[in-house]
Amino acid sequence: MSGRSPEALRADVGRLVGADRVVDDPARVARASRDTWVVSVWRSLQPTPPAPAACVVRPRTTAEVAKLLAYATRERVPVVPFGAGSGVCGGVLASADALVVDLGEMRALRAIDGQNLLATAEAGLMGDDFEAQLNAAGYSMGHFPQSIALSSVGGWVATRAAGQFSTKYGNIEDMLVAFEAVLPSGTIIRTRAIPRASTGPDLRHVFLGSEGTTGIVTEVTFEIHPLPAATAHEAIAFPSMSAGLESLRRIVRDGWRPAVLRLYDEIEAGRAFAGVAGATESLLLVLCEGPDALVAAERSAVEGISTACGGRLVGPGPVESWLHHRNAVPGFETFLKQGMVVDTIEVAVTWDRIDALFSGVLAGMRAVPGLIVASGHSSHTYPTGTNIYFTFAAKPESSADLEPLYFRIWSAAMEATLAAGGTISHHHGIGRVRRDWLPKELGSAYDALLTLQRAFDPLGIMNPGALLTTR
Amino acid sequence: MSGRSPEALRADVGRLVGADRVVDDPARVARASRDTWVVSVWRSLQPTPPAPAACVVRPRTTAEVAKLLAYATRERVPVVPFGAGSGVCGGVLASADALVVDLGEMRALRAIDGQNLLATAEAGLMGDDFEAQLNAAGYSMGHFPQSIALSSVGGWVATRAAGQFSTKYGNIEDMLVAFEAVLPSGTIIRTRAIPRASTGPDLRHVFLGSEGTTGIVTEVTFEIHPLPAATAHEAIAFPSMSAGLESLRRIVRDGWRPAVLRLYDEIEAGRAFAGVAGATESLLLVLCEGPDALVAAERSAVEGISTACGGRLVGPGPVESWLHHRNAVPGFETFLKQGMVVDTIEVAVTWDRIDALFSGVLAGMRAVPGLIVASGHSSHTYPTGTNIYFTFAAKPESSADLEPLYFRIWSAAMEATLAAGGTISHHHGIGRVRRDWLPKELGSAYDALLTLQRAFDPLGIMNPGALLTTR
Repeated sequence: MSGRSPEALRADVGRLVGADRVVDDPARVARASRDTWVVSVWRSLQPTPPAPAACVVRPRTTAEVAKLLAYATRERVPVVPFGAGSGVCGGVLASADALVVDLGEMRALRAIDGQNLLATAEAGLMGDDFEAQLNAAGYSMGHFPQSIALSSVGGWVATRAAGQFSTKYGNIEDMLVAFEAVLPSGTIIRTRAIPRASTGPDLRHVFLGSEGTTGIVTEVTFEIHPLPAATAHEAIAFPSMSAGLESLRRIVRDGWRPAVLRLYDEIEAGRAFAGVAGATESLLLVLCEGPDALVAAERSAVEGISTACGGRLVGPGPVESWLHHRNAVPGFETFLKQGMVVDTIEVAVTWDRIDALFSGVLAGMRAVPGLIVASGHSSHTYPTGTNIYFTFAAKPESSADLEPLYFRIWSAAMEATLAAGGTISHHHGIGRVRRDWLPKELGSAYDALLTLQRAFDPLGIMNPGALLTTR
Repeated sequence: MSGRSPEALRADVGRLVGADRVVDDPARVARASRDTWVVSVWRSLQPTPPAPAACVVRPRTTAEVAKLLAYATRERVPVVPFGAGSGVCGGVLASADALVVDLGEMRALRAIDGQNLLATAEAGLMGDDFEAQLNAAGYSMGHFPQSIALSSVGGWVATRAAGQFSTKYGNIEDMLVAFEAVLPSGTIIRTRAIPRASTGPDLRHVFLGSEGTTGIVTEVTFEIHPLPAATAHEAIAFPSMSAGLESLRRIVRDGWRPAVLRLYDEIEAGRAFAGVAGATESLLLVLCEGPDALVAAERSAVEGISTACGGRLVGPGPVESWLHHRNAVPGFETFLKQGMVVDTIEVAVTWDRIDALFSGVLAGMRAVPGLIVASGHSSHTYPTGTNIYFTFAAKPESSADLEPLYFRIWSAAMEATLAAGGTISHHHGIGRVRRDWLPKELGSAYDALLTLQRAFDPLGIMNPGALLTTR
């Protein structure tokens, strides 16, 4: 796209923001040229890994980001925003002519405002660092993606992230109060922290879920909460996934909002909590938090509803175990080195279709030769429906078949999700792995999405290849 | 803008969708050419009222809306979408060459889906009719704008409406699950009813708050709730507005979400609930609803927090009185015929600035000669802040000075709101009355709003003059 050679691009960028901002270390350049999509990890392990980005730059200020984008617009250089690279969908995958704007140096916590329950940070601040600083001041964001130690606060916005406590605290779109972003032209826009407004279409949604295709988010202001006065933990075994899902539906329908409602199928319950539930039972983890009286009432209601749905209380142990181990998952590399590919696929659907989606996606994946195991759990429940977070492991006959096998399984899962009327992504985003199915999901609305994206990025320089099949 | 004469436009429209869809009655044409902005009401009462729209059409299907917009795009005819005309900001004010698309014939309730807690209706369905049909089936939307009997479900989306029970159930953006809309080109887009997705920027927000400038919403799917098992009412008198506001802050900060928290200043408390509170006291109405145990715990917590903030419980009477009379307000006409102008101005701000905003806006309005009374209440509370809904009455020296006086008062309120760091509109929208202050509120983000609007309406035919000062 650009006429600039990698050398010329690096020299230009060094002149713009300082040569010390340009990353030299080839390993760091390679790492910043992709996210944690298992396909990218796999390719990075091959004897000839993909060519990295032409230039990786680590600006230290919004003004530097603005300079870089204005330059990229002038020179038609493709720009790939990089937060912390923990995405798993190929949302970051820089071409060899691309400029990667790595926000890792922009990690200041600007303010914790206890009176207004707001916290402001630069986009590159890591999630666990942000949460730890809030905790030290007596607050929490209530946003706990499994990736919290690997992801940045700006990345949460760009990917429309969801955290493990979402049933009570909402998803990232419920938490983002204000932002600063740089448009491809280099224009900096800032919104004000206000509780709620009716002042035209809500511009936060130009960037929430944008995957970097409309600009670069440089600062975020999130709603925070005082640390809760009380918490309660309980695990409940159900005779079937279907019975557990019905219990979830009734809990939120009645107006309760436990922070955590995680329902594992019998495979995952057996794997993560061996011996707690029977071999064919599903297992629900419940965590309530808030004021004492609310937690007591909620816990009692959840237990009553669950029991009425066939559940059996098995104590707080599994919840406490999960809290300790919840973010420790083996990396994709471990499995790849054993000749296996493992991945997760999160989708969502309304209650009337949840059983069909759950069984349909599992059946679709299991019909693919090479699949070893597929399982799922529900982790984000709403009055209208819930998500299923599927995990699969597969072993190709040869390493040459690893990618084709992987894509066959994904295709089976995506087609089964759409057939069941679900959304192809609950909270990981589209990136490249789901891109081909997005037009099927959105139908006539896909063109409206293109219209929006093109309006903000008329030259098509922002993260090309992610989210949209065409520009 | 268009080269079509009113006669030619009416003939064209009749040929497109049937002559019986074109409104002939001059009084209905005049009424559909404006909303309930007091300035428009005032002008309509003058000996020479403003010229009405060239044509008012009442399509019966989305396909007819699509035909009308495709025609308007072809002929460059300005289009004014009309829901029920209850807006109070001049969001609907058709020019003499405009085509008003009145959605009043599209009022079918499509479905009440009790399992998924969803209800779907055509955009022209009236709010009270929708809620009554939900109630009959055992559900409620939990959305109660004061205008519920005067406004349409599509209008709620276009204006980013808020209802009286918002602290528990959220505002319209929290309730809209899916929609159908017609773009200016005539393209029909539909989204799916899914619980939550990460599939790019959320297209609902192209239309929420659009005030008809990006297209016409033709169908909506909202989240609904089972009718609550329990309710509790209590009113609490506070020694000052500031003490009451601090109580609101602490209630939501602790994690409670009563459906209604309405805090009236001493003027409004005295006017609406005479004798309940002392002459200098503010009055808080609390309504809790939901499961029995939640309501009991919440009521007790709210009373405890309020008492700690200096509040004095005065019983459920004022809440019950409010529930009976809450939507019965005198129309603007009553006052205009007495030579007075009355209006409301709702704004919002974070907690740290709420006292300054409250006193600043009142002082600003009271400094305008001709103002008789100005007062306010808080009706929508969030963890981060709250709104104030101001009411003013003014009497000009002569009828010629009514409009100038009105705009002087609005200007004082807008400037004081911005000076206090607030948003100029909490839930009524921008229309024409606030239009000149929107660039000041959004600052550098105003151009992004223009970019979004122009992308969907490149010819500038959609509700010109509303929301944006320029296109």
